[in-house]
Amino acid sequence: MTEEKDYKLLPKIDSPADLRKLNVDQLPLLCDELRHDIIHELSVNPGHLASSLGVVELTVALHYVFDTPYDRIVWDVGHQAYGHKILTGRRDQFCTNRKLGGLKPFPFPTESEYDTFCCGHASNSVSAALGMAVAARLHGEKRKVVAVIGDGAMSGGLAFEGINNAAGIPNDLLVILNDNNMSIDNSVGGMREYLLKLNTNTTYNNLRYRASRKLFDWGVLNEKRRKSIIRFNNSLKSMLTRQQNMFEGMDIRYFGPTDGHDVVELVRVLKAIREMKGPKLLHVHTVKGKGYAPAEENATVWHAPGKFDEESGKRLVSKHENPCPPKFQEVFGKTLLELAQQNEQIVGVTPAMPTGCSMNIMMQELPKRVFDVGIAEGHAVTFSGGMAKDGLLPFCNIYSSFMQRAYDNIIHDVAIMKLNMVLCLDRAGLVGEDGPTHHGAFDLAFLRPIPNLTIASPYDEQELRRLMFTAQQKDMGTFVIRYPRGRGSRVDWHCELEAVPVGKGRKLRDGDDVAVLSLGPIGTEVEKAISSLEEDEMKNEELRMKNESSSSNEHGRIHSSFPSVAHYDMRFLKPIDEDILHEVGKKFKRVITIEDGVVSGGLGSAVLEFFADHGYQVEVERMGIPDAFVEHGTVAQLRAICKMDAEAIKERVCSK
Amino acid sequence: MTEEKDYKLLPKIDSPADLRKLNVDQLPLLCDELRHDIIHELSVNPGHLASSLGVVELTVALHYVFDTPYDRIVWDVGHQAYGHKILTGRRDQFCTNRKLGGLKPFPFPTESEYDTFCCGHASNSVSAALGMAVAARLHGEKRKVVAVIGDGAMSGGLAFEGINNAAGIPNDLLVILNDNNMSIDNSVGGMREYLLKLNTNTTYNNLRYRASRKLFDWGVLNEKRRKSIIRFNNSLKSMLTRQQNMFEGMDIRYFGPTDGHDVVELVRVLKAIREMKGPKLLHVHTVKGKGYAPAEENATVWHAPGKFDEESGKRLVSKHENPCPPKFQEVFGKTLLELAQQNEQIVGVTPAMPTGCSMNIMMQELPKRVFDVGIAEGHAVTFSGGMAKDGLLPFCNIYSSFMQRAYDNIIHDVAIMKLNMVLCLDRAGLVGEDGPTHHGAFDLAFLRPIPNLTIASPYDEQELRRLMFTAQQKDMGTFVIRYPRGRGSRVDWHCELEAVPVGKGRKLRDGDDVAVLSLGPIGTEVEKAISSLEEDEMKNEELRMKNESSSSNEHGRIHSSFPSVAHYDMRFLKPIDEDILHEVGKKFKRVITIEDGVVSGGLGSAVLEFFADHGYQVEVERMGIPDAFVEHGTVAQLRAICKMDAEAIKERVCSK
Repeated sequence: MTEEKDYKLLPKIDSPADLRKLNVDQLPLLCDELRHDIIHELSVNPGHLASSLGVVELTVALHYVFDTPYDRIVWDVGHQAYGHKILTGRRDQFCTNRKLGGLKPFPFPTESEYDTFCCGHASNSVSAALGMAVAARLHGEKRKVVAVIGDGAMSGGLAFEGINNAAGIPNDLLVILNDNNMSIDNSVGGMREYLLKLNTNTTYNNLRYRASRKLFDWGVLNEKRRKSIIRFNNSLKSMLTRQQNMFEGMDIRYFGPTDGHDVVELVRVLKAIREMKGPKLLHVHTVKGKGYAPAEENATVWHAPGKFDEESGKRLVSKHENPCPPKFQEVFGKTLLELAQQNEQIVGVTPAMPTGCSMNIMMQELPKRVFDVGIAEGHAVTFSGGMAKDGLLPFCNIYSSFMQRAYDNIIHDVAIMKLNMVLCLDRAGLVGEDGPTHHGAFDLAFLRPIPNLTIASPYDEQELRRLMFTAQQKDMGTFVIRYPRGRGSRVDWHCELEAVPVGKGRKLRDGDDVAVLSLGPIGTEVEKAISSLEEDEMKNEELRMKNESSSSNEHGRIHSSFPSVAHYDMRFLKPIDEDILHEVGKKFKRVITIEDGVVSGGLGSAVLEFFADHGYQVEVERMGIPDAFVEHGTVAQLRAICKMDAEAIKERVCSK
Repeated sequence: MTEEKDYKLLPKIDSPADLRKLNVDQLPLLCDELRHDIIHELSVNPGHLASSLGVVELTVALHYVFDTPYDRIVWDVGHQAYGHKILTGRRDQFCTNRKLGGLKPFPFPTESEYDTFCCGHASNSVSAALGMAVAARLHGEKRKVVAVIGDGAMSGGLAFEGINNAAGIPNDLLVILNDNNMSIDNSVGGMREYLLKLNTNTTYNNLRYRASRKLFDWGVLNEKRRKSIIRFNNSLKSMLTRQQNMFEGMDIRYFGPTDGHDVVELVRVLKAIREMKGPKLLHVHTVKGKGYAPAEENATVWHAPGKFDEESGKRLVSKHENPCPPKFQEVFGKTLLELAQQNEQIVGVTPAMPTGCSMNIMMQELPKRVFDVGIAEGHAVTFSGGMAKDGLLPFCNIYSSFMQRAYDNIIHDVAIMKLNMVLCLDRAGLVGEDGPTHHGAFDLAFLRPIPNLTIASPYDEQELRRLMFTAQQKDMGTFVIRYPRGRGSRVDWHCELEAVPVGKGRKLRDGDDVAVLSLGPIGTEVEKAISSLEEDEMKNEELRMKNESSSSNEHGRIHSSFPSVAHYDMRFLKPIDEDILHEVGKKFKRVITIEDGVVSGGLGSAVLEFFADHGYQVEVERMGIPDAFVEHGTVAQLRAICKMDAEAIKERVCSK
């Protein structure tokens, strides 16, 4: 493998314009260097490895053939775009990738003119690119527009809507399907090999000629019917290559599959189809993790491997000296299996995230009762609705920010019928390095207005288990449980499974001056804040006693009393615990609410509404994510910025 | 045409079990009677005519062949299901269809065990039916599940996600594609005719045999690869029938197209494929409005024609003596054209609702600048985002309740990039007879938490024009305008186009005791309430004077003073007018908010949050749609039930 100091080409590439000065036969070397650079950078600065390695050649070929940034490349899901970043003038900054204030986790237009669209959520590239292609046409620009979409993202309905519309209106869009061998049909035979040079390949053209002549003879094809010929060619290509090709039935020209790691061939094919009129699709085969053996062998693990030793290929998993609390995901996965073993109506549904949400634990034991439906959040919810309607009890687990994709499905296909099912929102609240597209900031606010929902969030791992147990009891209706990414707060998570009363919170701590109402694990920050206050108070007390004994007045300005703080874990956003709110409304003049979600519309607003409706005159201060898209950084950094951590809570409590 | 009194079969059908006692050769007569019954009922009690006429034979055949309600029929978009209602024991109640307290506008499980799922929004049937099919399999039930989906609904991404998933997991689902000649490829040739009896047709089977032999000879097909054979057969059928068939590339068996108006043939085909294993799709051709000449001729007008004269086929359009205010839709459509003629960056985008939202006005004049993208709300928004990113200014018009389908697209593909575009939410608030699935109840609450949005609602038609003008000015970011279905309040709507200040409301009326803050046209109800109060006051004043002059004390108990009411039209939900709120917070102890949307999360909550954040101790009473799915009825009836009309406002104002 090339060593960094020996790079011959990469250091000269400050922009794609430099890249385009190279000869095509220099591109393989550039690809080597780029691949090495990505591996090297990611070994010390964790990020998404396997996807970006898979598209090294494609990235180079695209910027080589197309006149970026005038031409538009729209990436679908930006974690494949590290090569793109390095080639577009961001190599020096790449070490700041995903860090607070550094390069963004995904391409984003404000970071670079080469980044054409927001690409944190899958399947949007075709629609966005089609919009750009139409804009170019209306503006009379000769601009080319290319969408690069993975086979996983192609299962999203939005991608289908985009392709379907692209086939129907005038445009010259090029869609590149980056198929990294994760597709359904793995049996790639020898036939594929001789079809690599598809457009000029004699065998293919002979076959096509012979087959089409037969069909003309039989009166089935007809020169006047261009669309039927496009579709005929598409389906023939699909059969010849023994590949699943969902585009066969659409009026869009299909090319491929071609080898996505032969950069010279890619350049040739892209140049050949670049000027063709009408929408077209190029099917490219790539290997996730290509060029780094450990990643090629296990692309799932090496999707985002953390730090690793470049030479040995060993992942540097940080070891914990003491047993540390498990991840909420792990508790979810193990508890789901436990419950499913007891309740045979339980089924699991995940849109392509079995590992991420730990549903793979149940999948392994009860494979027939877990459904990975692909990247298709809307379908995941409606499909669950259908199962619930006929008596099954689905646990449908979707990351909070992706649940935005299934909003109408929750309303129209579930809540309106009061179906018994459990919507589990993983990655709720601030998620850290994945940034604004991935924070689960809005769920509390967008779910609360929906009638018939029960909405809960566990304070800790034990509460998660209890809520999951509660939710799967008979006739509980539509039950939402939202919890964050990462570790909880307790090692002794494996408590007995027992029900909690629906719509009831808990008083964690009594107090007299101010009541803090929290929802979910952010409540542990409240406890930290109060403990810290208590420590301060003890220190002060010591000081005061010392001062008194020395009869000095020197420290007389020190606060002699801190506010006495009550803390309630509300547990349910809906129905909200009215007993607690009456108690608080009667006793306190000052209330602070805190939630790991936007401050408008969630817990804080619910509390305000209750107090207004019941005539309590209480000062309510709302803490939570502000009304802005929060950037990337560690969760701790972001909580500090959003003033949602123990420090900020302490400050707020003492501010009056 | 059969006369009602002469019905021989229909009166005997109290349930599908009765239907199944008939001989197959009696079914054509039953279809005649059912069709007549639908026409007759709808001539006096308006509803969706054309769709239901198109599926008369399909409805009869389905209930004849399948063992409903044990077997499941899942209708996609319920306005085709009138025949289904009449055959499933609801004929006597059918005259109450869509009326307050009467039959629901769409099938709904709580109304009948034959109604399997909620079906107000398009494209959900396949996912829901797949869920039921999987539930049957896991429960060991022999139940059959059928989804009936129109070609329009097939363009929705959710339907694709469902089909894609159906092709991938074990199930015996039958999808019926009801293609009512609205498909792209209209050139239906003579080839279709001899393919009607597809499964047994000799010509087709000969063709298939010859073609497949050739492909086997060439080494392309292979008995071991069942999926490639399914796809080959699919694509061949598609070519033979010269029909667009998007299922060619999927692993789902395709049958058809067959004549959807030949009930005997439908029964034969359905019986033939009923027991087949694996997912399958039957393509059925129908004619919208079939059997009623005026409706066949113009299915768009006769989609929901209102009352009509059955004999003459004349629609009974209610005449207004005086000029009446236009519909908001009309004002939108005409104003959009005006603006587009002045600003050449403006384009229009609609997901299959050009007539409903009046974008057809611009479409006629500037066809290249309007895009009907089909039923695909998510794509409509993301596609608009792509156009906006490259300098066009899209007006993307989507009904409020359907915008729920595009929630993530608004967040991830538009707002996060602060793209300049206008999201127009038609049918916002209570819509009337279409009921709970169609009320635009949630938009204010679900849009308000999204950063970077401007959200406005016009008080009247002139304000709609001004807001549209304002929104299309340079660099206005993402601008939401929501307005209701139906007529506004003023005849003189065609005002000059001028901008309003963003985030600024208007004081419509000064007062001293209570301030009413309204958003949108519901504000006219506030004005009515205040006028009514003033009238009462004048009458009282007259009475009092009369009493005084007669020196009688008899009427002394009459209120001598009504509360003095200020009224503010907030105009913008976000950014909210802080000047008004400071003014109100300082002056009033009592504030009433009213909005045509759910009370949780919208205007009322925003006002509460502002007062809490700024330390105003004000009693706030929130009026709006309650936290429940509101049933169907006229808008006036529903407003009265939800306590949102002038009467309720007056009562509320006087309640303290």
